[in-house]
Amino acid sequence: MSSKLELCIIIFVKREEAPDMPCTIAKATAVFGDTWNVLLIRQACMGSKRFDEFQDELGIGRNILNGRLAALVDEGVFSKVSYQTNPERYEYRLTQKGRDAWRILAAMAAWADTHSLHGAPTPLVYKHKSCNHRMHAEVVCSHCGDELDVREVLALPGPGHPEYKKK
Amino acid sequence: MSSKLELCIIIFVKREEAPDMPCTIAKATAVFGDTWNVLLIRQACMGSKRFDEFQDELGIGRNILNGRLAALVDEGVFSKVSYQTNPERYEYRLTQKGRDAWRILAAMAAWADTHSLHGAPTPLVYKHKSCNHRMHAEVVCSHCGDELDVREVLALPGPGHPEYKKK
Repeated sequence: MSSKLELCIIIFVKREEAPDMPCTIAKATAVFGDTWNVLLIRQACMGSKRFDEFQDELGIGRNILNGRLAALVDEGVFSKVSYQTNPERYEYRLTQKGRDAWRILAAMAAWADTHSLHGAPTPLVYKHKSCNHRMHAEVVCSHCGDELDVREVLALPGPGHPEYKKK
Repeated sequence: MSSKLELCIIIFVKREEAPDMPCTIAKATAVFGDTWNVLLIRQACMGSKRFDEFQDELGIGRNILNGRLAALVDEGVFSKVSYQTNPERYEYRLTQKGRDAWRILAAMAAWADTHSLHGAPTPLVYKHKSCNHRMHAEVVCSHCGDELDVREVLALPGPGHPEYKKK
């Protein structure tokens, strides 16, 4: 883990936030559009629950970890559960929303396996316990089951979109 | 789009970078762990190619847009293609890696539809042209086709992992 002390010479910083667009992909970036969030969900899926576990595994600074865990609790990805009193200590447990978030991580892993290894052997393989086979994640159409190709998909305004037109 | 001028009163900023871990999910965060990257891929999937189109649609600052486009070209998500000389002008076209990235966005949209709308109607629906049905993305096992549940999946060190053991 690399961490750098950097001299900030710009006094006024213009912070850009993601646009508030009527789009579920934009909504999802509140969770996935941040590397630490993705890695925290990854560690939680591998069994981590406690602050010190996340910190040791990721080498993340305490302030950053505090902020990300609080945000992921607010988002409903983790629930914060007391496991000890005097002193009070908490665990961060994946909710159903958090467990379902793993599917996006699995799809990312399959994509990076295909496109980011440049011929190097993969560092991670998956086994599906229910069918007992090595596998990777595929993103398919909920109706026909075919793997999705963006050129075969139309995105249309839904009932929550200002341009939605009832048929 | 909201953008804030913020007074930066901390002179020394400690920048944390993601750990260099043997994990394809961590590799994928180089692209997806950034909201602007995700939204740029989204716009490109909807047909945008040119700097001004991205800027108009997302309300993104020119410097930030320049940086993100350059990084996505470096990552192989976009190819930068000249479409005019004198003055020279470029388009940013999705590569196969970029088109495949859309699957992760579709999985994010399905997840946010289920977990982030809190009963509000969805702003976006999808139609699969090949089967001619409304659909959403599902993340399934490449072997048995069942939708993935993290509790049913084992992640194991692959041949590119230092702890990999040959059978």
